[in-house]
Amino acid sequence: MLISETKVRVYYEDTDKMGVVYYGKYPRYYEIGRTEMIRELGFTYKELEDSGIYLPCSSITINYLKPACYDDMLTIRTTVEELPKVRFVFKTEIYNQNQELLNRGEVVLVFFNAAANKPCRAPESFIKMIEKYF
Amino acid sequence: MLISETKVRVYYEDTDKMGVVYYGKYPRYYEIGRTEMIRELGFTYKELEDSGIYLPCSSITINYLKPACYDDMLTIRTTVEELPKVRFVFKTEIYNQNQELLNRGEVVLVFFNAAANKPCRAPESFIKMIEKYF
Amino acid sequence: MLISETKVRVYYEDTDKMGVVYYGKYPRYYEIGRTEMIRELGFTYKELEDSGIYLPCSSITINYLKPACYDDMLTIRTTVEELPKVRFVFKTEIYNQNQELLNRGEVVLVFFNAAANKPCRAPESFIKMIEKYF
Amino acid sequence: MLISETKVRVYYEDTDKMGVVYYGKYPRYYEIGRTEMIRELGFTYKELEDSGIYLPCSSITINYLKPACYDDMLTIRTTVEELPKVRFVFKTEIYNQNQELLNRGEVVLVFFNAAANKPCRAPESFIKMIEKYF
Repeated sequence: MLISETKVRVYYEDTDKMGVVYYGKYPRYYEIGRTEMIRELGFTYKELEDSGIYLPCSSITINYLKPACYDDMLTIRTTVEELPKVRFVFKTEIYNQNQELLNRGEVVLVFFNAAANKPCRAPESFIKMIEKYF
Repeated sequence: MLISETKVRVYYEDTDKMGVVYYGKYPRYYEIGRTEMIRELGFTYKELEDSGIYLPCSSITINYLKPACYDDMLTIRTTVEELPKVRFVFKTEIYNQNQELLNRGEVVLVFFNAAANKPCRAPESFIKMIEKYF
Repeated sequence: MLISETKVRVYYEDTDKMGVVYYGKYPRYYEIGRTEMIRELGFTYKELEDSGIYLPCSSITINYLKPACYDDMLTIRTTVEELPKVRFVFKTEIYNQNQELLNRGEVVLVFFNAAANKPCRAPESFIKMIEKYF
Repeated sequence: MLISETKVRVYYEDTDKMGVVYYGKYPRYYEIGRTEMIRELGFTYKELEDSGIYLPCSSITINYLKPACYDDMLTIRTTVEELPKVRFVFKTEIYNQNQELLNRGEVVLVFFNAAANKPCRAPESFIKMIEKYF
């Protein structure tokens, strides 16, 4: 299993007139969480792209439990439970500075070969790098 | 049942470096769809808020079928299948100008009494206004 | 001179916790204004790009006079006063539904040849199309 | 003089189809820069608001020198050159990880008394806290 935690501050731009983080901002938090998780593994999402493999999103589910507020310091906790093959499934939980669980969701990405313009399996080199975690 | 269609253009700001609409922009499209649906019923989401009732989001599910591209003219098709009581469930489909279904999802909002600071039932006046559609 | 008006509604996503449109949303409004202005001339910004000419932004100035509020119907008034040659200068004014001037600014874009990877003059075909307005 | 530096990573959401950071994302960077500068002084923008003083934006100027790219680690350098009285003027420079200056701008905020609903002078306590820097 892969687990990673990243912190982000809530700024004015993230809030809406209800005074809390706009519901449409969470996909960004999820993106930050998984991007930093991959970076911690020793390579970057950017390098994956440079090798011709993209990871478009197939689906996302978000459960909003409590609002995140202005100036909160959020912890984005990202987990991958299964070795990705065709799909790359990320579970995300977001906590505030009081360790309250605010938000929980799941993102499914698919490996996509840009040159062939179709879905593909995860590259062997990528699998080799991360299979030890599963 | 309630059905409503709204059109939105894709601008630069909506795209990302993959050249298509960023996956986190769809909640905004869903918001536009349901806001305009409510307006067509003869009142506005703003009036609901002014009466002390808010509609925070409880959950969202999005399925990404095909990418929306720059300068596409999207049709946001919003449907409400059940008379809202405690929860207000919106189904959304997004089509491009070629009538291709690009994206499909569901948003669950809950009625929330701002003064009491807790969830509530849909206001009677609101139910009266829309029950004829169900 | 070129003048164009486009209408946009203010949604939740555009607001911040001050209850008004976030100051960083205005560049998007300016983008919408100039994109629709170009469309009214009979071609699109997208076609310009497809021909290899991009229009990156060189500078922007925004004056915030009054706040735009949730659910406001804004009118984006875009003006081009001089025939663009190397630079393309757009003046924008934003009014609410009460004809109050809320916001005023200027955006300078430059013509950029993607293949040559450097700034260029406006394409001849483009100049021909719009010089009658100046 | 006040000087502060904050680092931010460029994510997918910040980019547009030109493959670089969208021109409308910079006001957010400027917000992050000044918010963290104020935090370093030992209080927060949030506390200022809780005391009834808001800081709406009066004007912004941005000069785009070079594009910021996906996965860049940006340094936001924020400077205040004059003791704020009625206006609070921030100069911002943004550098990439190669110390290239990408972007430069100025934001003018005004002190605003929420209860009185009008502009005001900077609170005495605020002036006391920061006058030693000028």
